[in-house]
Amino acid sequence: MKLGTAGRTIRLGIIGLGNRSNDHIHSLVDMPDIEIRAVCDVYPDRVLRAQKMVEEAKGFRPDGTTDYRELNRRDDIEAVIILTSWTTHIQIAVDAMEQGKIPGMEVGGASSLEECWQMVRTSEKTGVPLMLLENCCYGQEEMTLLNMVRKNVFGELVYCRGGYQHDLRQEIGEGDLNRHYRQQNFIHRNGELYPTHELGPIAEYLRLNRGNRMLMLVSMASKAIGERAWLAKHRPDSPLKDQVFHEGDIVSTLIKCANGETIELTHDCTLPRPYSRGGYLRGLYGVWQEDNRGIYLENVTKPAANGEHLYESDKPYMEQYLHPLWKEYREYGLRGGHGGMDYLVLRAFIESIQKKKPFPIDVYDAASWMAITCLSEQSIAMGSMPVPIPDFTDGKWIRREKREGDIFSLDDVYEDQL
Amino acid sequence: MKLGTAGRTIRLGIIGLGNRSNDHIHSLVDMPDIEIRAVCDVYPDRVLRAQKMVEEAKGFRPDGTTDYRELNRRDDIEAVIILTSWTTHIQIAVDAMEQGKIPGMEVGGASSLEECWQMVRTSEKTGVPLMLLENCCYGQEEMTLLNMVRKNVFGELVYCRGGYQHDLRQEIGEGDLNRHYRQQNFIHRNGELYPTHELGPIAEYLRLNRGNRMLMLVSMASKAIGERAWLAKHRPDSPLKDQVFHEGDIVSTLIKCANGETIELTHDCTLPRPYSRGGYLRGLYGVWQEDNRGIYLENVTKPAANGEHLYESDKPYMEQYLHPLWKEYREYGLRGGHGGMDYLVLRAFIESIQKKKPFPIDVYDAASWMAITCLSEQSIAMGSMPVPIPDFTDGKWIRREKREGDIFSLDDVYEDQL
Repeated sequence: MKLGTAGRTIRLGIIGLGNRSNDHIHSLVDMPDIEIRAVCDVYPDRVLRAQKMVEEAKGFRPDGTTDYRELNRRDDIEAVIILTSWTTHIQIAVDAMEQGKIPGMEVGGASSLEECWQMVRTSEKTGVPLMLLENCCYGQEEMTLLNMVRKNVFGELVYCRGGYQHDLRQEIGEGDLNRHYRQQNFIHRNGELYPTHELGPIAEYLRLNRGNRMLMLVSMASKAIGERAWLAKHRPDSPLKDQVFHEGDIVSTLIKCANGETIELTHDCTLPRPYSRGGYLRGLYGVWQEDNRGIYLENVTKPAANGEHLYESDKPYMEQYLHPLWKEYREYGLRGGHGGMDYLVLRAFIESIQKKKPFPIDVYDAASWMAITCLSEQSIAMGSMPVPIPDFTDGKWIRREKREGDIFSLDDVYEDQL
Repeated sequence: MKLGTAGRTIRLGIIGLGNRSNDHIHSLVDMPDIEIRAVCDVYPDRVLRAQKMVEEAKGFRPDGTTDYRELNRRDDIEAVIILTSWTTHIQIAVDAMEQGKIPGMEVGGASSLEECWQMVRTSEKTGVPLMLLENCCYGQEEMTLLNMVRKNVFGELVYCRGGYQHDLRQEIGEGDLNRHYRQQNFIHRNGELYPTHELGPIAEYLRLNRGNRMLMLVSMASKAIGERAWLAKHRPDSPLKDQVFHEGDIVSTLIKCANGETIELTHDCTLPRPYSRGGYLRGLYGVWQEDNRGIYLENVTKPAANGEHLYESDKPYMEQYLHPLWKEYREYGLRGGHGGMDYLVLRAFIESIQKKKPFPIDVYDAASWMAITCLSEQSIAMGSMPVPIPDFTDGKWIRREKREGDIFSLDDVYEDQL
């Protein structure tokens, strides 16, 4: 990736024009090597809004449709970006691949293992690659930690924790009853609904699907009282005020990996709290923890005057080990949403297509990360039974260890490219 | 409890004279209403040391023995304090109760459910009560949090987390091969070996065995590489250098409660880290977290200038809600080990006997908290299967809600006593 270098023009369709599409369209219209040819949503008002947005920025009005199959069948697009509700990502991506269109798919969890397999098999059969647009893999903090992991600062990793810990009571409680997919999921489901923001970066640290993989998980859900209490207090006249929400306020998931590491994920959206992705890394040489912005490295961190071992601030380490892409990005100038990481994940998608390089987050990553959602639902439904996590690579994970020039491997080839 | 008030003299025997007994003997010889009549350990050198310690402090040399049954059969003692290795606490306590002696038992985990039941049944049959000497239930921080919980500062609780997170690699790696019970447990077992320091206070917050109880758990262990790496680096000539340690470096346990709360415990002793009991409370109104010394209370904590919700320091709250016993204790003057909490737990044991009051941490608490160890071993052995946690109260937990005058209930009766 060489930021600011335009490659050949990639013609895109965009499917799903809710809030998330605003961010992405803003980033995309700013790129000189992108043309948005068509936009799609089941709600015509959203289609119109998106057409207008693109036209105002680029002077070209993309076609609009309410049928994603129509968009996928156009012969003037090479790739589609899928930003629909969680439960429709995969079916749209599968249809796109069958039509020879390369899907870049926003995050969310899967509803069944079968759809994950269908996604994998369709990609294998058609030869069309798929990328999961997990922006947090491109976060400054996450990439810097990855750099530290690759430089062996923490030693062999043993345990990683992360969470989607975001007080969304108002968003869930106020959302439009029909259009708000998160609300519907919180009403009907109970599981790790949104695993990839924290699991994605952890998967890179632990080289999942590349010499390591997730073997099994157990999930446990607390009672679900937060959303209902919020509605009773803040929206006593809401049509949802007597609604039972099944999603536990805190859903904990433990995952065991082939190389013996354990991962813990927390889904935590319906109780008051400060935002946090709850990052926490443990290795043979030390610890990093997001919530206290602390790091402790044996033989590096000086003990206190009384000999006590304490955390020190992670700030100097975050500068010292800043990922090379983020060094470049700072010089180039940050842009796009979520602190700049949205732009990076979109560029990774576009540039991999331009250079015909494997996606850094590919169909096997997408399938295994998204499968955590339905597997955690199954585990909770069966009283926290352990459930196996399929090997979507069919054994290829053992030999997929090295990704030459890959941004997440940080090997010499990548560093030379800069 | 009225600190500094001497009651009638309680005559004690002490069984188990390792390191922990030094702390407790120091505290006990300082109390005017205590007589240590006999001491016991399987190692005669320890017996001699303890006899000398008591004699120097009190001018009275207690009898010594290497046979706990001999001690339990003395007719000049009323109670015994059991400070032996983890795996022998219960058998010694059962023998004591059968001899009519009241056991105060140091913490540790159980090896089987059967021994937990045997402890419960023996207490019920003989009418002799038992107290688990969980000092952390008397910690300043833990009692202050309990006070906040009882005053509904956090609202209805949903999730509690805690851990025994203590880098013990040197202690484990250097320990005497025969005498060091922790080392032997880390070599042979794999589970939540030491649950009660964090579970005890959480049990009080959640009123476990008093209107609530633990239903089931799952445990997962990471690989075990920390102790072996420490030995290879620091003690290359140790007889243990090729020893396989089975205890996972990080053991995670999720527990579901009857009232819908979830609890998470972490056992974490063989990787480098600062000490922490990893406390974390979540309720309808807010959050408290030990590692960032942070608290966030909706409607209380002011948002940042940009509207962001952030943690604030817990320090003023820890003063504002200081538990009444700790207010009194500060005036009286802290004493004993572990920041003063050892003294309080011993006084609770002694004064409950003097006043013939139920122990604040009784045989049902002891059985259910200690059972976590063997149940977590079972869960891990079966690939993180969920295992049920027995109801050691046989249904009495439903009606045991109110504990009048109890320090952990903090009801009006208790407050009036001060």
